[in-house]
Amino acid sequence: MQCLNVDLGDRSYPIYIGAGLFEGPELLAPHIVGKRVFIVTDDTVAPLYLAALESALTGYQVSSMVLPTGEAFKNWATLQQVFDALLTERHDRKTTLIALGGGVIGDMTGFAAACYQRGVNFIQIPTTLLSQVDSSVGGKTGINHPAGKNMIGAFYQPQAVLIDTNSLKTLPVREVSAGLAEIIKYGLIRDSAFLDWLEQNMAGLRALDTSLITEAVLRSCSIKAEVVSADEREGGVRAILNLGHTFGHAIETHQGYGAWLHGEAVGAGMVMALDMSARLGWISADQLERGRRIIASAGLPTAPPKAMSSADFRRLMAVDKKVLDGQLRLVLLQSWGCATVTADFAAEALTDCLAGW
Amino acid sequence: MQCLNVDLGDRSYPIYIGAGLFEGPELLAPHIVGKRVFIVTDDTVAPLYLAALESALTGYQVSSMVLPTGEAFKNWATLQQVFDALLTERHDRKTTLIALGGGVIGDMTGFAAACYQRGVNFIQIPTTLLSQVDSSVGGKTGINHPAGKNMIGAFYQPQAVLIDTNSLKTLPVREVSAGLAEIIKYGLIRDSAFLDWLEQNMAGLRALDTSLITEAVLRSCSIKAEVVSADEREGGVRAILNLGHTFGHAIETHQGYGAWLHGEAVGAGMVMALDMSARLGWISADQLERGRRIIASAGLPTAPPKAMSSADFRRLMAVDKKVLDGQLRLVLLQSWGCATVTADFAAEALTDCLAGW
Repeated sequence: MQCLNVDLGDRSYPIYIGAGLFEGPELLAPHIVGKRVFIVTDDTVAPLYLAALESALTGYQVSSMVLPTGEAFKNWATLQQVFDALLTERHDRKTTLIALGGGVIGDMTGFAAACYQRGVNFIQIPTTLLSQVDSSVGGKTGINHPAGKNMIGAFYQPQAVLIDTNSLKTLPVREVSAGLAEIIKYGLIRDSAFLDWLEQNMAGLRALDTSLITEAVLRSCSIKAEVVSADEREGGVRAILNLGHTFGHAIETHQGYGAWLHGEAVGAGMVMALDMSARLGWISADQLERGRRIIASAGLPTAPPKAMSSADFRRLMAVDKKVLDGQLRLVLLQSWGCATVTADFAAEALTDCLAGW
Repeated sequence: MQCLNVDLGDRSYPIYIGAGLFEGPELLAPHIVGKRVFIVTDDTVAPLYLAALESALTGYQVSSMVLPTGEAFKNWATLQQVFDALLTERHDRKTTLIALGGGVIGDMTGFAAACYQRGVNFIQIPTTLLSQVDSSVGGKTGINHPAGKNMIGAFYQPQAVLIDTNSLKTLPVREVSAGLAEIIKYGLIRDSAFLDWLEQNMAGLRALDTSLITEAVLRSCSIKAEVVSADEREGGVRAILNLGHTFGHAIETHQGYGAWLHGEAVGAGMVMALDMSARLGWISADQLERGRRIIASAGLPTAPPKAMSSADFRRLMAVDKKVLDGQLRLVLLQSWGCATVTADFAAEALTDCLAGW
């Protein structure tokens, strides 16, 4: 087992990475404060892992809630069901919420924990590759609003993150690719050597080779933990973690939540961000093509949906959380393996970029 | 003008107390980060003070939202209207929310600020006596759930609190009494000399004598700031600020939000807490009677509604946020002017106390 620390002062917490982690109670127990545990999961994950987790929690009063699967349910109505259950079962401030599932479950359970009685403990057990390398680490929680993704939420850190690589064995191929999108992102924004490694090992990663996957998850979480520790509330550098996300969120909103997987939209969005970076002369045409090839090799789309116009993108990107004082800011590559967040780009470059698709 | 500091490290903020404070922009400007301001108020306060506040905010892009008045609207549906407006108007993370109104507006606007794009700045301008001495200070924000008051919320501190005592001139008599309930509470929990002073000056306070009111608000906010600084997230001592609130919340929930004013329910709840304290022998029968007399002299009810049974109280008190591991904890007076939060009381004392009404 590997253990990483996310260093955030009195909100610091460990990330455990390994195989079979939630089959034993040893890792969970130190992070549960009271006698009661409330597990939130979805109807895809519940049949696979809920019983195993529950049986690891002997000695606690455990209840669970199984939500419908998917981004389309990451909204207030579903969150309200969680609150209703917590109140009906009279959970108090010493209860611990456990998120067992992908990013949707993690974001929503984390936000429920942030708001229930003004904040209770929670633990993340991410079961998808995407949530293991991204959403379970860093404390971003929230729900979608019809006008924009993740618009309502909180920065709220878990007590611990348990990444059990065994849970990837049941993951659909399309979701493995979606997870690889975020893994590639870490290479693009911060670590060109990791990109080289990903290029060489993509086939093994897609085949879920245990040691390769563990290595990729560990390196991804390390980069994320380092960036989050430097800037917990996204006042500055943390925004680079959103490479491809401004374009990607526009795609997700346009298509309706859930039609494209988040990682797929980020895949296409990263190609658009690379395209912008190349138009600005910050990376070469060869690097753009190399980036596109790595993203394609992960089984991801490398272009937005044909039905989306420039006007669609502009309208949907205007509500991005990185917009400040009305000005759109984008995460772009300043050089290969080094991202920046900037509003300092020629307007025509964006016009040409959007028109180019 | 008086200025108090709430000492919470990098979340510290000033409370300004005086007459005519929001007629000038000097106090507000340092606490607004971007170019945009969004004022949330209600249809009682808007006709009285919204124009004055807006005209003090020259140089900013100001918009406002007028909500229906009252505790009955402190719910998700109203909060959603705030989010809808913020998103429709494309407010970004650098926007500043201003709560102009009583406790309902402050709690809801603060929670909206806590959740909108995972947190934006906000300023409290409390216009009722109750919100000036209580809810505007300390960062408790939230909304009600049908199963319990303030069950969904966040600890989220404002950038500043502006208490303009001029705004009390338009306050209904019943709401002045409700505010005095919380002021009496500070004396009961922490400052017996302040209780003596309140006994002597109650008539002048009810007549809204400016210097007496300013003194009472300042002393109340000082006690609250001191307690909150010691325990921001209510891990311990902060709970004493809830004297009378466990009984009071039960009354409010039973009667339907808004039927009793919060301060009225706290008035009756404090008499019940004093009664419990006397039954346990912690205060004398004389002190119980003296407390009851002070509360009555403020124009507050000193008994719960006749229609409420012991069973009603037990059922409604079981969801109190101070319940831990299934055990009810109450704020009681250990001695005159000194409160404690405790589960360590004879069960029969509570049975007798509830049966006594």
